[in-house]
Amino acid sequence: MWMETNSKTEEETSRSRATTAQCVLNGLRLCTGDMEHMDKYMQGRFFVLQLVLWGLRGVSRVILANNPLSGALIMAALCWESRWQALLGTVGVLASTITAVIMGQDSAEVSGGHHGFNGMLVSLLMGVFSSAGDWYWWLLLPACLGSATCVFLYSGLSSVFHHWDLPVSVFPFNTIILLYLLCTGSDNPYFPHLPAIPPGALGPNDTKLIAVEVIRGIPLGVGQIYACVALGPCLLILGAVLLYSPLLAVHALLGSAVGTLAGLSMAVKPDFLYSGLSGFNGSLGCMAVGGLFFTFSWRIHLLAIANAFLSAYADIALGNLLGTVGLPACSWAATLTTTLMMLLTGSLAAYRIPVSQVMAPEDNLRSRSQWEAGNTAERESTDV
Amino acid sequence: MWMETNSKTEEETSRSRATTAQCVLNGLRLCTGDMEHMDKYMQGRFFVLQLVLWGLRGVSRVILANNPLSGALIMAALCWESRWQALLGTVGVLASTITAVIMGQDSAEVSGGHHGFNGMLVSLLMGVFSSAGDWYWWLLLPACLGSATCVFLYSGLSSVFHHWDLPVSVFPFNTIILLYLLCTGSDNPYFPHLPAIPPGALGPNDTKLIAVEVIRGIPLGVGQIYACVALGPCLLILGAVLLYSPLLAVHALLGSAVGTLAGLSMAVKPDFLYSGLSGFNGSLGCMAVGGLFFTFSWRIHLLAIANAFLSAYADIALGNLLGTVGLPACSWAATLTTTLMMLLTGSLAAYRIPVSQVMAPEDNLRSRSQWEAGNTAERESTDV
Amino acid sequence: MWMETNSKTEEETSRSRATTAQCVLNGLRLCTGDMEHMDKYMQGRFFVLQLVLWGLRGVSRVILANNPLSGALIMAALCWESRWQALLGTVGVLASTITAVIMGQDSAEVSGGHHGFNGMLVSLLMGVFSSAGDWYWWLLLPACLGSATCVFLYSGLSSVFHHWDLPVSVFPFNTIILLYLLCTGSDNPYFPHLPAIPPGALGPNDTKLIAVEVIRGIPLGVGQIYACVALGPCLLILGAVLLYSPLLAVHALLGSAVGTLAGLSMAVKPDFLYSGLSGFNGSLGCMAVGGLFFTFSWRIHLLAIANAFLSAYADIALGNLLGTVGLPACSWAATLTTTLMMLLTGSLAAYRIPVSQVMAPEDNLRSRSQWEAGNTAERESTDV
Repeated sequence: MWMETNSKTEEETSRSRATTAQCVLNGLRLCTGDMEHMDKYMQGRFFVLQLVLWGLRGVSRVILANNPLSGALIMAALCWESRWQALLGTVGVLASTITAVIMGQDSAEVSGGHHGFNGMLVSLLMGVFSSAGDWYWWLLLPACLGSATCVFLYSGLSSVFHHWDLPVSVFPFNTIILLYLLCTGSDNPYFPHLPAIPPGALGPNDTKLIAVEVIRGIPLGVGQIYACVALGPCLLILGAVLLYSPLLAVHALLGSAVGTLAGLSMAVKPDFLYSGLSGFNGSLGCMAVGGLFFTFSWRIHLLAIANAFLSAYADIALGNLLGTVGLPACSWAATLTTTLMMLLTGSLAAYRIPVSQVMAPEDNLRSRSQWEAGNTAERESTDV
Repeated sequence: MWMETNSKTEEETSRSRATTAQCVLNGLRLCTGDMEHMDKYMQGRFFVLQLVLWGLRGVSRVILANNPLSGALIMAALCWESRWQALLGTVGVLASTITAVIMGQDSAEVSGGHHGFNGMLVSLLMGVFSSAGDWYWWLLLPACLGSATCVFLYSGLSSVFHHWDLPVSVFPFNTIILLYLLCTGSDNPYFPHLPAIPPGALGPNDTKLIAVEVIRGIPLGVGQIYACVALGPCLLILGAVLLYSPLLAVHALLGSAVGTLAGLSMAVKPDFLYSGLSGFNGSLGCMAVGGLFFTFSWRIHLLAIANAFLSAYADIALGNLLGTVGLPACSWAATLTTTLMMLLTGSLAAYRIPVSQVMAPEDNLRSRSQWEAGNTAERESTDV
Repeated sequence: MWMETNSKTEEETSRSRATTAQCVLNGLRLCTGDMEHMDKYMQGRFFVLQLVLWGLRGVSRVILANNPLSGALIMAALCWESRWQALLGTVGVLASTITAVIMGQDSAEVSGGHHGFNGMLVSLLMGVFSSAGDWYWWLLLPACLGSATCVFLYSGLSSVFHHWDLPVSVFPFNTIILLYLLCTGSDNPYFPHLPAIPPGALGPNDTKLIAVEVIRGIPLGVGQIYACVALGPCLLILGAVLLYSPLLAVHALLGSAVGTLAGLSMAVKPDFLYSGLSGFNGSLGCMAVGGLFFTFSWRIHLLAIANAFLSAYADIALGNLLGTVGLPACSWAATLTTTLMMLLTGSLAAYRIPVSQVMAPEDNLRSRSQWEAGNTAERESTDV
């Protein structure tokens, strides 16, 4: 209809369309991927603004992304789910980032959000396991201290892991949350918490599975990385990953499905499937291998699926083991198996990307193909 | 009698005797030790034949030997004990070897059977702990998957252990079998298994020991490395070790005896002694130090005995610890203590053989003495 | 009064006073710090005398000192507390030192007492946990064997830790004592022992705290490093630390106070506070960072307090975890957190003293300021 009312020629219209499309594309290119231009833009600005940027990067790093907009979306999802959890997450990410600044940690690491994501997870999980209810303000004390301690572990472990060019990933979070839960115990008068229930402990009514609920658990598995259990926020988190990298988002869902399959094959209790708890380790393992630390190819895609299965089974095993003393398995399984995959020798090791060069998988594929094209051109020119 | 009927002179007879003896010796020399000539002979043959050779080497590597004939003898022993167990072992060794080929692992490692032995052990132990009875065909599924996973662990761990020139040994098996048992739990509807009983848990009738049974447990300890509990197959396995290297066989028996002694001193339950379970870690520890990773000498012999004691006590300790959650200690103790011995500094470290040069102890002693003789001759010629 | 009876002039008197003061100072300087002159003095003497010196250094190394006189004071404190414990400690330190000599360990390490302190602790703790009462002579057998095994662990672990310039510290003791307690179990007919009670297990009468007892627990925390529970011996041990280095003694008390505070904040059971058990890990952690492995400064002082808190909380956590199987947490917490602090990267790593150059903190500060003065002088002369 507007074609008629408009006096522009078809050519002009198509040109304007192309321009609009390009604008959107350019805008998308600015908002997706690692958004490194933001760092340049923010340099020399107020410390508080920089801190917010570092914090948002830290928030997105939990799910292996590195994009402040994704971080903002995830914070929105957490607010949607529960404002108390969002507050805890904010406190955690800020406490650990500021501690890293005070301790004089490497500034590139701090500004990349590397010191924020462990602290955020510690703080979130303290809130999830607390049995004192929401808005129990005393909880901010251990949340701050626990988050700050993550910086010590991150810094110390990086010295060790550096020898094999491995990322520290969420080892600090997993260690600190277990120490906190062990320290307080379930009957603590100040910080009581609920004991974790092992995935293998079947109740009396756990005989039948509802297929819809199981399928619903797949997207929930992606949200469980932030301890989210409502479908809406989980989809928003998935959207945040999609914004950073579509390839990563596909692997997140795929890994969660693999984890659910593994849970079915081991007959874990239905709640474990419905809540997405059986999926999130698979999701993390699948994303790390398929999207981040290896150059994508069909062999790596298969390795990512294998790692998702391994993560999911290891999570059930560790959940059963730690459940005997009332502890959760957190993301130990995905962290350990991904570390193992990065240590692989043989022909698969050639696909491994050095930790210092890790970026959004799309960017990585592009730079790889450019580099290969350059190599080929060079070889051809040499041949002639 | 044939001396009279025969017209040969005595000289001729003795010559023919010498020739016969030499033939037997040559034959023996071909069948014992590492049998490296087999690899040359097999090169370029059908893949299936090569796979059989790699598999048999893998079977013998469980007991620290590296000889396809020993492997064949051990497979015979397993068939004698239980055909289902032999099938599981075959499936395990093939699944992990083929996975290693597909994953593009180092071909020298694959053809040396390094990727087979962990898979075989995982598969065998899944069968032993399964409470679903023999010929439960579904068990082949986790057996295949578990064996294949060993290759990932072997490859990943070798990157880490390489820094200290340590062998990966049976760390993958020990990890995977614990994860499997934890994952399924004792009440699993698909893969139920029996919980392990800790060695320190005394029953009401466990006050008196039968000396003959205890002594019978010593050779059974060597067979327990393959989860064998019948005397005949155990002796056949011991024979397989003897074929590879008499020194190793002596240390196997000695270590088993030391382990039984350690069990007696800690008053473990009689069944643990009778079945050889208290001996097999000592046996593995004694073999590894006394026969394989160190040049044999009297000091090393004492170190091997010390390691056997340490392995045996550590096995009881770990058995009691893991037994509280129904898990077996497998060969964690021997693996850990042998790794420790290989890290020793001081004057004992001079006896250590680099992992890449490990061969049958007799071959090693011969090459060492030749090397020393060469050194002396050279020094003498230089002196003159 | 003697001023009148004495015919000396005031000048002479003051000179003699100065001389006396200098004599005392010189004497103090000879008795405090690392006392390296003793090693030169002892060289070439009888082996037994040397062994006593090495042993006493080993005794003092438990509390991070390196001074034979401190060692002698500590032995006196142990005799005062219980002669049986003193005997066990002596047996332990001698057994491990002699084993190190036989095994051909590095002579500088042996003469520095590095192989004695782990053995001593193993032996002492075996006595503390034994439920067979004092003077149960059979206990000397595992005490000797356990102490000797520490040398294997020390030597093996040092190969691994050397890569990061980390001290082995008390990892061998912590490992061996857990293995011993697991191996024997509580019902062992030969070596029965008491199960450890986790710090979080509150009894029915554990609601009120007595402030005096809690404060009394602070100096007891220093003595608990040697499993001392009486105030007199604990103060003597503190005096032994004071003789080596006042700075270390201050941090010992401070760390114990921090540990008690951490215990209060987690509502551990009162016995845990009264006996000093909640303080000793904090004390060790605070001493190691504040006095030994880092050049003292205000930032390091704060790091020492942070490490004391971290050690104390980690001790409660590990105590609760290991307590579920009746095991004590020993000094795992302080050992792990101190190792972590020594791995720290960033600007704090500049204060780290290489392990081979560790000495009494006062000596270290002096040599540091001399070195800096020399550096400044050199720079000035270069500038001119």
